[in-house]
Amino acid sequence: MSGVIVLAYSGGLDTSVCIPLLRERYGFERVITVLTDVGQPKEDIERGNKRAEKLSDEHYVIDAKEEFVTDYIFPAIKANGSYEGYVLGTAIARPLIARKTVEVAERLGADALGHGCTGRGNDQLRFEAIFRATELRVVAPMRDLELSREWEIDYARDHGIDVPVTRERPWSIDENLWSRSIEGGLLEDPFFEPPEEIYAWTKPPERGLAPQKVDIEFSAGVPIALDGERMGGVELIENLNRTAGEHGVGRTDMIEDRVLGLKARENYEHPAATVLLTAHRDLERLVLSRAELRFKASVDDAWSELAYMGLVNDPLYSDLSAFVDQSQKRVNGVVRMKLSCGRAFSVGRRSPDAIYDQEMVSFDSKTLSQRDSEGFAKYHGFQARFLAKR
Amino acid sequence: MSGVIVLAYSGGLDTSVCIPLLRERYGFERVITVLTDVGQPKEDIERGNKRAEKLSDEHYVIDAKEEFVTDYIFPAIKANGSYEGYVLGTAIARPLIARKTVEVAERLGADALGHGCTGRGNDQLRFEAIFRATELRVVAPMRDLELSREWEIDYARDHGIDVPVTRERPWSIDENLWSRSIEGGLLEDPFFEPPEEIYAWTKPPERGLAPQKVDIEFSAGVPIALDGERMGGVELIENLNRTAGEHGVGRTDMIEDRVLGLKARENYEHPAATVLLTAHRDLERLVLSRAELRFKASVDDAWSELAYMGLVNDPLYSDLSAFVDQSQKRVNGVVRMKLSCGRAFSVGRRSPDAIYDQEMVSFDSKTLSQRDSEGFAKYHGFQARFLAKR
Amino acid sequence: MSGVIVLAYSGGLDTSVCIPLLRERYGFERVITVLTDVGQPKEDIERGNKRAEKLSDEHYVIDAKEEFVTDYIFPAIKANGSYEGYVLGTAIARPLIARKTVEVAERLGADALGHGCTGRGNDQLRFEAIFRATELRVVAPMRDLELSREWEIDYARDHGIDVPVTRERPWSIDENLWSRSIEGGLLEDPFFEPPEEIYAWTKPPERGLAPQKVDIEFSAGVPIALDGERMGGVELIENLNRTAGEHGVGRTDMIEDRVLGLKARENYEHPAATVLLTAHRDLERLVLSRAELRFKASVDDAWSELAYMGLVNDPLYSDLSAFVDQSQKRVNGVVRMKLSCGRAFSVGRRSPDAIYDQEMVSFDSKTLSQRDSEGFAKYHGFQARFLAKR
Amino acid sequence: MSGVIVLAYSGGLDTSVCIPLLRERYGFERVITVLTDVGQPKEDIERGNKRAEKLSDEHYVIDAKEEFVTDYIFPAIKANGSYEGYVLGTAIARPLIARKTVEVAERLGADALGHGCTGRGNDQLRFEAIFRATELRVVAPMRDLELSREWEIDYARDHGIDVPVTRERPWSIDENLWSRSIEGGLLEDPFFEPPEEIYAWTKPPERGLAPQKVDIEFSAGVPIALDGERMGGVELIENLNRTAGEHGVGRTDMIEDRVLGLKARENYEHPAATVLLTAHRDLERLVLSRAELRFKASVDDAWSELAYMGLVNDPLYSDLSAFVDQSQKRVNGVVRMKLSCGRAFSVGRRSPDAIYDQEMVSFDSKTLSQRDSEGFAKYHGFQARFLAKR
Repeated sequence: MSGVIVLAYSGGLDTSVCIPLLRERYGFERVITVLTDVGQPKEDIERGNKRAEKLSDEHYVIDAKEEFVTDYIFPAIKANGSYEGYVLGTAIARPLIARKTVEVAERLGADALGHGCTGRGNDQLRFEAIFRATELRVVAPMRDLELSREWEIDYARDHGIDVPVTRERPWSIDENLWSRSIEGGLLEDPFFEPPEEIYAWTKPPERGLAPQKVDIEFSAGVPIALDGERMGGVELIENLNRTAGEHGVGRTDMIEDRVLGLKARENYEHPAATVLLTAHRDLERLVLSRAELRFKASVDDAWSELAYMGLVNDPLYSDLSAFVDQSQKRVNGVVRMKLSCGRAFSVGRRSPDAIYDQEMVSFDSKTLSQRDSEGFAKYHGFQARFLAKR
Repeated sequence: MSGVIVLAYSGGLDTSVCIPLLRERYGFERVITVLTDVGQPKEDIERGNKRAEKLSDEHYVIDAKEEFVTDYIFPAIKANGSYEGYVLGTAIARPLIARKTVEVAERLGADALGHGCTGRGNDQLRFEAIFRATELRVVAPMRDLELSREWEIDYARDHGIDVPVTRERPWSIDENLWSRSIEGGLLEDPFFEPPEEIYAWTKPPERGLAPQKVDIEFSAGVPIALDGERMGGVELIENLNRTAGEHGVGRTDMIEDRVLGLKARENYEHPAATVLLTAHRDLERLVLSRAELRFKASVDDAWSELAYMGLVNDPLYSDLSAFVDQSQKRVNGVVRMKLSCGRAFSVGRRSPDAIYDQEMVSFDSKTLSQRDSEGFAKYHGFQARFLAKR
Repeated sequence: MSGVIVLAYSGGLDTSVCIPLLRERYGFERVITVLTDVGQPKEDIERGNKRAEKLSDEHYVIDAKEEFVTDYIFPAIKANGSYEGYVLGTAIARPLIARKTVEVAERLGADALGHGCTGRGNDQLRFEAIFRATELRVVAPMRDLELSREWEIDYARDHGIDVPVTRERPWSIDENLWSRSIEGGLLEDPFFEPPEEIYAWTKPPERGLAPQKVDIEFSAGVPIALDGERMGGVELIENLNRTAGEHGVGRTDMIEDRVLGLKARENYEHPAATVLLTAHRDLERLVLSRAELRFKASVDDAWSELAYMGLVNDPLYSDLSAFVDQSQKRVNGVVRMKLSCGRAFSVGRRSPDAIYDQEMVSFDSKTLSQRDSEGFAKYHGFQARFLAKR
Repeated sequence: MSGVIVLAYSGGLDTSVCIPLLRERYGFERVITVLTDVGQPKEDIERGNKRAEKLSDEHYVIDAKEEFVTDYIFPAIKANGSYEGYVLGTAIARPLIARKTVEVAERLGADALGHGCTGRGNDQLRFEAIFRATELRVVAPMRDLELSREWEIDYARDHGIDVPVTRERPWSIDENLWSRSIEGGLLEDPFFEPPEEIYAWTKPPERGLAPQKVDIEFSAGVPIALDGERMGGVELIENLNRTAGEHGVGRTDMIEDRVLGLKARENYEHPAATVLLTAHRDLERLVLSRAELRFKASVDDAWSELAYMGLVNDPLYSDLSAFVDQSQKRVNGVVRMKLSCGRAFSVGRRSPDAIYDQEMVSFDSKTLSQRDSEGFAKYHGFQARFLAKR
């Protein structure tokens, strides 16, 4: 087999090893790499670019941070995106990375699409949900060949790829603007307490930093200002990751059900996400009707499930988004959040669209007396009482 | 009108004022009071008993703490009982208090049942969901008469009831073993930050206490031991309220939708509930199947909604409980919780019933290769891709 | 009390009696009647107009049939509107009638709004959900005064209102374009078989009429043509009511849970609704993704519940509508329905937006072999098998 | 490879061809066949037994009809088992057939389990959800080898298997006590009207048979008597299949979403199922509380989804069953069904456990006046009105 393949490239060992493998084992004539910047550490991107320039036939690096915020993170905020308690960082970045890779492939008229995921996790499914919607061939060397880390390191050295100093990788890491995930190694024992060293974005919560308040302004469900200062989404999230990270805010340690059915122990950091999602939910409780809150919870769950599975092109995703966008029109206002030794919690919220009035008790007082509640009370649980009287 | 009424009596000003009112305004010959102990502060109960002995024709005090734990709190733990984020303290105690009051009324052949709730809140509905399942008359003087606090204090003084020193009640408080609620006054402004003084069970989270770990053992979904020491439910909860309260764990500040439709700003304290519910959810994620976790979330929501509304005698409540009890048979194991400046979080969990195995990756390895995932991947999002290809 | 009241007027005995009552018992100076035409029988409307001209100070008759179809029936089709199996006829017309009444009242600067519903049913709640969103006083004489039919007939005669020949009303009827409801009398015994005489729109299903097919074309979820002939909604529905009624299609006999909690035995006729809803669901199964079908079922239920309760101005109603409208963009195509002795069922369906292809079996055949299913099968029920192996 | 395989044997061409194939292509020394009788036509079973005696090394025929009714069909009735409108016949029989096959394999100490399903449908997944919970090897020759019908017929002839007269099979059929499915051939065009010839259990609905009534008595949610005569489940279902089949009752023509994601056009017959499920739902509406009806609908959906996928050993299945069984304790009573030219509908229902009373209107009349509804009405839609007034 010959032809051109475009590889979703992260810059790490796995996808670097894929480049020569795609030539040697699969016979591709040209291997083109696409590195999509969704907010990984700058040094990872730079190292990736250097490796790619050396290894691949053609290399593209695409800054997709704005798009990531606008089209993936903001919808996640509006839908209170959370899967079993986790904020959906890696999951929502995959479709974007896959789409950017497909765009390059279609522009160049490539024959195939490649990714470096193994056959154990979720990411293979997220990439392929996008890749397989094209007519191009899909290739996944890590899954096909079931290579060990040892083999990869030897192979990398043989192909002039600079390799990590240790053969053991204590943890497996994935980072983007919205969250950082840590898994594997000793963490696979669910009773093993995560050591402080796994964290990079959050300081130890107990270090005695004085509490700090931050006012977050929302417009139509998305954050637009911090402490009264308007700023773009990327800047706002980077700012909050830093600030809330200082207070140790935004750590998750959980057992998670992967798409294929395996449970896994996962650890995450996501300071900005914790602050923004907490504030957003708090504001929603002030402005959405009870009926909206109840039903939107099921919409949010369905949205999160699709997002976790990478099924953002199922038409249900658009239907849910239409619901969410309509509901968010009134999600305007300010939430005052307090950051304090690992916690982020609301201490105040106000909105021009609140279904609340300090005089609400007196609201409708012309027509609504306390005694009207008696009528309501007489019908409350009517059927149950009918049965009980029997 | 004449006859005997049994009054659900709390010992506070409102229900104390009801006693003479029921004679004077409603013509009852005998007013019998029932004070149900669900874990209120001892001094409240003692003061209540003293007042009742002076005011009522007959007084009963019933220790229902064990029953509260076994029949109301434990089910709440198994169902992850939470209403819009609140642990359902007052709500789950009301049916028990109402039932104890009914028991006395039926034993004594009384003519009527009374409660001291106003027409604005949830408690009138919770009491009457139980009261109105009997054939007895239901009387609610506070709702009927729409009395002001000033009027009540004057009336109390005229009837020899010792009254509070201040005419203003800064907050309205309700306490039982599972939670303490604080509402009213300045807190009615949702942007007013709750002052430290409203809290009685929780110390300031930031005071620098060294973190503490506690191992909680669950059997069939309910806690049976702390740090390996078996103890009864009342003791276990009292212990955790104390311990976790020291660390400032278990505060809620929220906008809540009352049954009648008003939103209200509510504050709560519930150290033990926070620790136990967090641990319980964490353990469930290890032992319940993904399908169970998804569906049980909707069962938990429905259970919590009924519990919040006091509709524990709707047959749906029993149906949901049957589901929950079946699901909890495998919820056995130990969760290691860390208490640290306001937070309670799991740092480890283990169970003989885990759907997890550190060698799970190698589980089924005889029959399950990484390449099998390719088949799965090809069907993942199949319909969406069919549409996209169009 | 004095002033001007605008009364939602049906033309029947109850609302006719209300007119003098509103003057005599409530002291209104002017009683203005609004009769909204939502497709009732012409003779009912004419009789109503005649009575109103005689009784009221000012009378308006408003043809709202087009609006009823476009803004109430079409949304009901798109949301598969059904409450416990019933097509929601009366329920969806009430908000429209209430809104038309409010429009007149606001234009004329009236002081109050009136309706003729009793305190037992749903309609009082549906009217007042709209009426009470204004600042006007709401008056419900039938509920206030708890009048008997005998009293009403005598009172009517005294006020020159022509009255029904019999004092017993065997059934209580409500009609509009979408459905005809029959309740009361002997039908209140749920074991009493409905006699043929209660039906007016549907012929006896068993009378041996030859089956008939009709092709229904949908565009964006709403019907636009019958047997290839485009026509407006009112005409299309009237046409189908006639045609399907000839075949005895569209009868419902059910126990229904009213909003207040009482169960009631209800009978309905709705030939067009049965045909259109059956066809619409059938088409949806061809064009919506499985994920959409699953979730939309819960959206449809929530929509129907709000519609049944008359809560069309809850913001949730708009949110759900946004979901529905998005999902319906692809609901285009033709369904061939067969009408045959009481049944209406699909015998064929086709759509340019089908997620279906007769060659779908061979679809993806380049990349999808039967053996790929083995991989899928190995993960199907993975967690359950893990437990079973234990 | 050598050893003993136990094959789930239907007696048809596919599984018959599997027997020599398992020896020749897979090297099994002994092929043992298990034919499970779940109510297929007697002649199919007899032909199967004859073929098996000739071909297999050891043959078992197991009468599982009683078990099918008690453990699979009755639960389906209680849960209103229906998948996208279909009564779940084939789906609920597969786990039973698989379990019977496993029982034989475990008793005989076999090495492998086999089935004759292809890789396109649902049945492979249902069989393997049970098979793969053992430690035995699973073999699926039809899926592995992707054989054509032509090849199979030639191969069968070569191995002395009597073959069908035609090489084309116009439809693919599956039958058991609860339903008969017909698919394939011309029916794959969703706009092709099913010809009368595909039906075997139901007579043409329009043939003018006089309507017939049948009283069905339920106890704890399952049918126990017809027209007052108690009978066992198998007899009762066979009886209703015959009776209702005469009236042409119980045909389904639908687009169905298979587990793997393909949509398929499916046709079914199920006279008894239609009658019993319709009657059961009708009775539930009389005896279950509104809250139960609402939530049980979601339980029924989840049960049906699991049943359709064959995931009866997921712990969720047991949890849902606990809910259902609790809810069914009060589902007692009689439903009078009318069978009339293709339709089965309730014309009357009665129950000692009804939440209904003809005097319900007057129920609680001591305490409940029409005016109490005004209080209820004032709170109905309260939040929406608050927003509207804004």
